[in-house]
Amino acid sequence: MLVNGKQYETIWHDAEADDIKVINQQKLPFSFEIQSLKTVDDAFYAIKNMIVRGAPLIGVTAAYGFYLAIKNCREITQNYIAETAKYLISARPTAVNLEYAIEKIKVAVLNNFGQTDISALTLKIANKIKQKEIENSSLIGDYGLTLIENLYKKHNRRINILTHCNAGWLACVDWGTALAPVYKAHFKGIDVHVWVDETRPRNQGAKLTAWELKSAGIPYTVIPDNTGGHLMQHKQVDLVIVGSDRTTRSGDVANKIGTYLKALAAKDNNIPFYVALPLSSIDFNISDGLSQIVIEQRDADEILKTDCLINNNIHKGYIMHKDTNVLNYGFDVTPARLVSGLITEKGICGANKKEIKKLWTKVI
Amino acid sequence: MLVNGKQYETIWHDAEADDIKVINQQKLPFSFEIQSLKTVDDAFYAIKNMIVRGAPLIGVTAAYGFYLAIKNCREITQNYIAETAKYLISARPTAVNLEYAIEKIKVAVLNNFGQTDISALTLKIANKIKQKEIENSSLIGDYGLTLIENLYKKHNRRINILTHCNAGWLACVDWGTALAPVYKAHFKGIDVHVWVDETRPRNQGAKLTAWELKSAGIPYTVIPDNTGGHLMQHKQVDLVIVGSDRTTRSGDVANKIGTYLKALAAKDNNIPFYVALPLSSIDFNISDGLSQIVIEQRDADEILKTDCLINNNIHKGYIMHKDTNVLNYGFDVTPARLVSGLITEKGICGANKKEIKKLWTKVI
Repeated sequence: MLVNGKQYETIWHDAEADDIKVINQQKLPFSFEIQSLKTVDDAFYAIKNMIVRGAPLIGVTAAYGFYLAIKNCREITQNYIAETAKYLISARPTAVNLEYAIEKIKVAVLNNFGQTDISALTLKIANKIKQKEIENSSLIGDYGLTLIENLYKKHNRRINILTHCNAGWLACVDWGTALAPVYKAHFKGIDVHVWVDETRPRNQGAKLTAWELKSAGIPYTVIPDNTGGHLMQHKQVDLVIVGSDRTTRSGDVANKIGTYLKALAAKDNNIPFYVALPLSSIDFNISDGLSQIVIEQRDADEILKTDCLINNNIHKGYIMHKDTNVLNYGFDVTPARLVSGLITEKGICGANKKEIKKLWTKVI
Repeated sequence: MLVNGKQYETIWHDAEADDIKVINQQKLPFSFEIQSLKTVDDAFYAIKNMIVRGAPLIGVTAAYGFYLAIKNCREITQNYIAETAKYLISARPTAVNLEYAIEKIKVAVLNNFGQTDISALTLKIANKIKQKEIENSSLIGDYGLTLIENLYKKHNRRINILTHCNAGWLACVDWGTALAPVYKAHFKGIDVHVWVDETRPRNQGAKLTAWELKSAGIPYTVIPDNTGGHLMQHKQVDLVIVGSDRTTRSGDVANKIGTYLKALAAKDNNIPFYVALPLSSIDFNISDGLSQIVIEQRDADEILKTDCLINNNIHKGYIMHKDTNVLNYGFDVTPARLVSGLITEKGICGANKKEIKKLWTKVI
């Protein structure tokens, strides 16, 4: 997508420096900075500390992290490969794409172990994973666009879409998941407006989604996470689209904490609630989201402190008393019964075992 | 309640200075400061800018504001009385207690116009309104306590109560509404723990409720507003109690924005959801909350900026880009169908026309 008139992706291999470049998402929207990842630890740290975030982008970053680990290692053993995989997966336990990308690359490396230039092979696979993510996002956008087009045809006025957190191109490589249909609609000339949940405690909505939409010239309004229910009660929301970090084979959706509350409000007000995700976010090993998805607890400081712009300088300050007891869950699970459908790169399907399986096995 | 070992109320008439003293709630929890209100404009400003907040306290402050208006006026006319009433009511349109207190005082003043020392009379009525609020809060606490006692007898372990915003003694004069039962339970030796919704955008939960509970030695944990649903899904919440700014005669409850989302989650997880309120918060003129309660839109800066403690100094800084489009609704309406019951100074009743009417007419 365009940033100040120049086309960007969130991550790329810099052939000249032979390192990985990412947009530092911790600095947005206050400044736009590119960061170099030179080691597997750099990649781990970038994922862990959310310099990069969003399930698809985490997967791609981990794949490139694997490449950095291989490239920088003098003596590659099978044990080193296994340990590197484990290490990278541990950076963010909830994101299934991470496991998916790492497992894919690990298998390829082990299969070719000792036979070829492992380093070049790893880079090739990482690049492929990245290209696939871009294609997937674009296809998700095309399928999701049909939902917006139908609403636009029906109402013949601006269509209001609510989203939680950031599942835009910043969470992926390009296009995004939840926002991909919004971009496609906007480029097609459909009048869309996005209600952007602030998304405490890290405020990815207020910081990243708002920045993305503003950069693209798409009308948006940031609202506190508390506000969506009220807007839905007053018919100010036509459609909810969110992303997902992990979805079970039955359609239970783990996404940023607070998603479940919006799904309940959508149901109560008869508003369609869709989840946009690449099929790689579906974990076929599990069926029941509530009991089987491990929800990570994050650092107390994410709640206690915030970045604050004062006289054009970013400061980190306490927004409550520093000794306040707090608890910081990163995600929640929205049961499949509250999900109108899943928007994937192979089409839209119901959030249930049968339809997910059918879509998964569909050849495109 | 005790603050640093000394007994305080949130507001009192200082006989020596003949002015009104309030705890400046904008400064909490970073500092504890007492502020003098000397004119009706001081009182208006204190309400408007949330130096005092909470429906019952707003009512009491407005009553004292009326006293300040009368006391400072050389020539009191009936028109001046009517205009003063209108002016004070306009400070916070959602809080029905404000209207209630002001109407009460206005009628008394007009009835005694020209016959007595209007100034002394106004002070007397304001003091009475204050005492009544304390009694009401204490009774709400006693009735609500029975709910907690029953849960404690049933489970024989710590009882977890979730609350939104601040409906503690800081929102009233003493005891509080939603927190009054918690204080009563704690003083009775019942092991209670409170999940405190941060309550964006003004963070009254993180700032005020946490401060109150900590001062009283009651276990609490502040959570982002997004977290309550997840905790309810995982049986970490036994009971929800919130306050109300205005409740219709049918039991629809206007309270801090985001309350509706918690009510939906409580319903979905079969958790009792109670609203604690003095009967003065019930507006018998209206029946349908969604169409009849005017929801105030507040300043964009409340969302864009926040107070931040940096090196022991409070700064106001932008937490998102200063040009971000935002929308700031102060309240939402929770439909009566989601409310398990109302805890009032006359007892607990169902959130419906019949039971509310019965309680209202009950003589105690």
